[in-house]
Amino acid sequence: MDQLKALLKTAATRYNKLLPHHDDARELVVFAHAKLAAEAAYAHYGDFAGRPAVPYHVFGVANAVSRPVRPDIYLADPGDFAASYKLFGDNLHAGPEGWGDAEIRLANSVVYTSVMAVACCYDLWQRGSRKTPGTVFEILMASLLQQMLPKAAFSKHIPLAALLGEEEAAAEEVGAELEAPDDDGGPGSVSTDLVIKRTAESNTGIVIPLKITTRERIVQPFAHQRILDSAFGAGVFRSLLVCISETQLDDKTTSVKQVCVPGTVKLFQKYLAPMAGLYYCDVPQRYAAADMQRVIPVQSVGHLFRDVARMLNDQSASSS
Amino acid sequence: MDQLKALLKTAATRYNKLLPHHDDARELVVFAHAKLAAEAAYAHYGDFAGRPAVPYHVFGVANAVSRPVRPDIYLADPGDFAASYKLFGDNLHAGPEGWGDAEIRLANSVVYTSVMAVACCYDLWQRGSRKTPGTVFEILMASLLQQMLPKAAFSKHIPLAALLGEEEAAAEEVGAELEAPDDDGGPGSVSTDLVIKRTAESNTGIVIPLKITTRERIVQPFAHQRILDSAFGAGVFRSLLVCISETQLDDKTTSVKQVCVPGTVKLFQKYLAPMAGLYYCDVPQRYAAADMQRVIPVQSVGHLFRDVARMLNDQSASSS
Repeated sequence: MDQLKALLKTAATRYNKLLPHHDDARELVVFAHAKLAAEAAYAHYGDFAGRPAVPYHVFGVANAVSRPVRPDIYLADPGDFAASYKLFGDNLHAGPEGWGDAEIRLANSVVYTSVMAVACCYDLWQRGSRKTPGTVFEILMASLLQQMLPKAAFSKHIPLAALLGEEEAAAEEVGAELEAPDDDGGPGSVSTDLVIKRTAESNTGIVIPLKITTRERIVQPFAHQRILDSAFGAGVFRSLLVCISETQLDDKTTSVKQVCVPGTVKLFQKYLAPMAGLYYCDVPQRYAAADMQRVIPVQSVGHLFRDVARMLNDQSASSS
Repeated sequence: MDQLKALLKTAATRYNKLLPHHDDARELVVFAHAKLAAEAAYAHYGDFAGRPAVPYHVFGVANAVSRPVRPDIYLADPGDFAASYKLFGDNLHAGPEGWGDAEIRLANSVVYTSVMAVACCYDLWQRGSRKTPGTVFEILMASLLQQMLPKAAFSKHIPLAALLGEEEAAAEEVGAELEAPDDDGGPGSVSTDLVIKRTAESNTGIVIPLKITTRERIVQPFAHQRILDSAFGAGVFRSLLVCISETQLDDKTTSVKQVCVPGTVKLFQKYLAPMAGLYYCDVPQRYAAADMQRVIPVQSVGHLFRDVARMLNDQSASSS
């Protein structure tokens, strides 16, 4: 784990300095993936009792099992994963506007595999670093979106101090303050939000909150959107909420529960502020249902890349 | 600690069933207070380096120290605490409308002493039960407000399912879902919000979120208020946020830090939804400053009782 932690630290440091870090991010996830493939067993654990049932695998070592992993999305073979990561990178460079189902599915699988590989390493060998998988999710997505959008301006916060006419809020950085104090000694100063503008001069932007445990803190992206709507006007900033779902193992029945709060999401979407889209690497069955789709569009993270590119192009068209 | 846990369980069970529980709550806090007085040392730890400096004590046993305690508010003598608790109860029965400074200060000290006594017991002898002090705060405040307002209707949630036209949200109970999964095996199903209506038939109400760690989850009461404003119209429900401040011990300098996020509070108050008031047992120095008071009225929890009574009377007057 020492080498994994060192790779994470390098990637996080470069990310926090807003330096290009896609090589660092790739090295991190490839290392974690190889470590799991070499040192842990990977086998079926149990199903989510949905319609249809959804099978889940886990990684296991002598004294621990990882979180549940979807074998239909996780690319378990190291050679396959490396080739898929490279092909996905090529597709990002070519631009996602013309992506079809195959490219979208590939993008989704690579993101899922990358984040879950690191998360499962921490589950098996470094329990207690609860925030690390979320940090890795953010670092990875930032690296991929930067590759796709080399001219776009990325930031991690929308400065709101000016709105209050004082300096104090700048030091607090709202996004960061909403997070739990770092409890793992890792690179925990990273905030949850990614902000993308077409250029540094753009007046509008896309906010991308990234969440792995969606239950407890799902209020945050909706509250942030509301603040942005109130402060800048509706539509100036639009939020795309990007998630990997929270699951729970049930030891007694060896089954897996998909943790969902559809009523809460609908309530926030209707009465707090609307997200422009909700994206999951592993869309929970409950969220794919028609009643949810009527309230908020739910798609795969593969679709996110195409949607982000299109939204920025639309801004370009409307501002020219 | 077994007896303390048993007392807490009894109080929590009765509270969760919405039964009168003020005797149970009092027994709980009196037991915790006596245990600390008998078994722990209570001495000056260090100061918050404010203007003026604010001294803090801690409770200590061989291998642990408690969170910082304000000796100017905490009633350390068991006899004094018991007498103060009784007098405060009598004052509640008589009604707080005519309270002066002495009654307000007494109420604030009794609430602070009660909650901190249980919290410090858990700090010393049951580390890891992170949510318990917050639960006790809620149980205690509910018992006191019920004594003060025997005719009022208390609940722990505002049902919002009807707004969505479906049953699902009712099962999720928004308030509860925003909480972390219970991590201490204690009475964690308690939600954070107290709702008081003048009578069960009233169309308006007062929402009282109770927080001990105000930094991470302070977005919640503002987001809830925004939803209530959107769903029912502004002013139908009004929120009074009631807190005990978060502090941090600094071992190196033996000083105490008051954790504050004034910029965040101002931002939420201005762009998310306004609280009708902010109440602290131990108002942080930063929040007592004029620039905060201009944005949101900050008072002691002693003032809360009087303000709640007045707000409900105003409702009575305007609806008659």
